Amino acid sequence: MRVTIAVDAMGGDHGPPVTVASSLRFLEETPDASIVLVGREDEVRKALRSASSPAVDRVTVQPATEIVAMNEPPADALRRKKDSSMRVAVNLVKSGQAQACVSAGNTGALMAISRFVLKTLPGIDRPAIASQLPTRKGVTTALDLGANVNCTPEQLLQFAVMGSALAAAVDGIERPSIGLLNIGEEDIKGNEVVKQTAELLKTSGLNFYGNIEGTDIYKGTTDVVVCDGFVGNVALKTSEGLAMMLADFLREEFTRSLLRKILALFSLPILRAFKRRVDPRRYNGATLIGLKGIVVKSHGGADKLAFRYALKKAYVEVTQRIPERIEQRIASMPMAAPAAAANPRAGAVDAEAH
Amino acid sequence: MRVTIAVDAMGGDHGPPVTVASSLRFLEETPDASIVLVGREDEVRKALRSASSPAVDRVTVQPATEIVAMNEPPADALRRKKDSSMRVAVNLVKSGQAQACVSAGNTGALMAISRFVLKTLPGIDRPAIASQLPTRKGVTTALDLGANVNCTPEQLLQFAVMGSALAAAVDGIERPSIGLLNIGEEDIKGNEVVKQTAELLKTSGLNFYGNIEGTDIYKGTTDVVVCDGFVGNVALKTSEGLAMMLADFLREEFTRSLLRKILALFSLPILRAFKRRVDPRRYNGATLIGLKGIVVKSHGGADKLAFRYALKKAYVEVTQRIPERIEQRIASMPMAAPAAAANPRAGAVDAEAH
Repeated sequence: MRVTIAVDAMGGDHGPPVTVASSLRFLEETPDASIVLVGREDEVRKALRSASSPAVDRVTVQPATEIVAMNEPPADALRRKKDSSMRVAVNLVKSGQAQACVSAGNTGALMAISRFVLKTLPGIDRPAIASQLPTRKGVTTALDLGANVNCTPEQLLQFAVMGSALAAAVDGIERPSIGLLNIGEEDIKGNEVVKQTAELLKTSGLNFYGNIEGTDIYKGTTDVVVCDGFVGNVALKTSEGLAMMLADFLREEFTRSLLRKILALFSLPILRAFKRRVDPRRYNGATLIGLKGIVVKSHGGADKLAFRYALKKAYVEVTQRIPERIEQRIASMPMAAPAAAANPRAGAVDAEAH
Repeated sequence: MRVTIAVDAMGGDHGPPVTVASSLRFLEETPDASIVLVGREDEVRKALRSASSPAVDRVTVQPATEIVAMNEPPADALRRKKDSSMRVAVNLVKSGQAQACVSAGNTGALMAISRFVLKTLPGIDRPAIASQLPTRKGVTTALDLGANVNCTPEQLLQFAVMGSALAAAVDGIERPSIGLLNIGEEDIKGNEVVKQTAELLKTSGLNFYGNIEGTDIYKGTTDVVVCDGFVGNVALKTSEGLAMMLADFLREEFTRSLLRKILALFSLPILRAFKRRVDPRRYNGATLIGLKGIVVKSHGGADKLAFRYALKKAYVEVTQRIPERIEQRIASMPMAAPAAAANPRAGAVDAEAH
C-alpha cells in the first residue's frame, strides 16, 4: 500500500526550507510513501529545487494561499483562513487524498481545524495530544499534553483507551499498563476528578496499574501516562526546561577553562553518545488522537531531523491503522461508548457505588 | 539572638543516625543556634554519643514516645499520636521554646499537625508548601508543591503574597516577580481558576509578570512561581524523575566500556563540578508557609548533608522573621485580608469587571 502524507509546508518556525527538505529525505528512506506539500506554490517549488532529491517524483504540490500564524487565535484560524496550508492539508485527509497530515504550526489551530474537518471517533468527546517520552526502560505514551484543560473522569478514561491503543499499535505491547498521574500512590490522594477516574479505570477492562507520581513518568513505571491537558502540558514543558538547563550547565562546566576544554576532548564521544540518547528530536511528533483521521503535530522549532521523526510517526500510525484500532477498542469496552456519550455522568455515579 | 530549632529526630527514612549527626554538624557551623532533639530518648542519646561533637552542649533532648509512619494517614497521626516526635516538635514552636521545627517525616501529617497546633496567619486560608528550585539565573521560589489539590483564585493570590515575602526575605529581592504557571502566555490560556487568579494578581500591587509556562521555571523567568498543589507536585516530581534518569544515562555512557572508564577519569573533576552544581541536596528543605510559626519539611530520604540544608533554611527563616513579614505584606495589600476572608468571592467578581 502506498502511504500518502499531507504536509503543511508553511507551518513551524522555519517553513519550506525545513519541511520540504525533510519531506524529501523521509521519502528517500521510505520507498512506499508519497507526500503532498501544501502551501505557497512558489516557496514550496523553490525549496524543492534547492533540495534536489531523487524522491521528488513522489511529491506533489497542493497550492494554499494563506498561513496560520503561530500566535493566531484558533477560532480565527478556523473561521477566516479557509485556504491556509494547515486547513488544506487536513482537508486532504478528509477527502481521502492523504492518509495523514503533519504540521509544525499553531497547535490550537491544528486541533480546532482537525476537530472541525475530521470530527472525533464515536465514543470520544474530545481529542487529546499524545506523545512518546523516553524513560529508563524505553518509552511511555503520555496524554493529554495540552488540548483539554478541564477533563471529566469519562474523558480521562477515553484518553486511557486511546493511549492504550496507541501504545499497543506503535510499541507492540499487548496490554499496555495505564498509570493515572496523581500526587501520591494511595487511593485517597488527588482531586475528585482523579479519584473518580481511578474508579472508572478499575472496571474498564484496561490494564490499570493505579495512581503514579511525576517521578514514575521517566522511571517508565507504566506504558501509558494519563492526565488532563493542563497537568500534562506543565509536566512536558517543565521537563523541556530542566533538560535545557542541565545541558547548558554541562556545556558550561566542560568549557569553563582551556584545561577543561582539552579534557573535554577526551570525553567528546561519550558526551555525543549521551546527547544522541536523550535527543528530544527523536521524540518529535505528537499525535492528535481521537480523530477520524491521523494528524501529527511537530514541534514548531523542529529542524529537518526532528520533522522527519514526525513524518515517521504519521507513517507508522497509517500502517498501524490507529484510528480503527481505537474505535474497535472503544466498541469492546464494558461500558459501551454510546451509553456513556448519552449520559456522561453515568459512569461516575456507577463508579462511586463501588 | 539565640535561635532554637526543634528537630523531629525520628522523622525520615533514616531517623536519628542522620537527623542527630546532621544537627550537630549544623550547630558546629552556626554558633548562635541551639537544637532540641525530639524523639525516643535512648535512640537519640545513642546517636548523640556516637557522633561526639563539641556542639553537644547546645543540644537538649525532649523525649517523645511515638513515631508517625511515613505512610500513615495524616488524620490518624493528628488524632491518635499526641506524643509523636513530630507533634512534640511542633508543640515546642507553639510554646515558644523553639522558633522553628524541622522534620523529614510524613508530609501530610506534618502539614495537618502544624495547621492544627500553630494555626494559619490572618488572611491565609490554607498553608502551602514552598521550595527553592535552581534556575539558569539562580533560584526561584515555587509554591504550592503539594499541600492543596484544589485552590480558589484567592488562595493562589495568597500563595503569591507568601512566595513574594519569602523570596524578598531569603533571596534579598526587593519586589520579586511573580509568574502564574499556565499552559501558555496569552490571557486566554488555562482554566477558569488560573484566569481569575491572573485578574486578581494584576490589581494586587504585587510585581506580577504574567502567565508563564513549564519551561520558564528553570529558565528563571520569574522569582516566584505560583500554582496549585496538584500541578506543583507533578512538576516537582517529574523534574526529580527526569534528573535521575539523565544522571543514570550519563553514568551509563561513561562506564559502558573500559576505554570509556579511562576516558572518564580525565573529565572526573568536570563531572563532579557539574554534579555539585545541580545537587538536589543543596535545595532540600520545603517551607510549610502561611503558619503562625516556622516549619520546614526535609525530603524523607535526606542524608546528613541534605538535612543540614533543611536546618539552614529554618535558621534563615527565623532570622528573617518570615511569618511576620508575610503578615505585614498581607495587611498592606489593596484588598485587605479580613474583607477577602469574609467574602472570598468578592475579589474574583471585582476582577472580572476589569
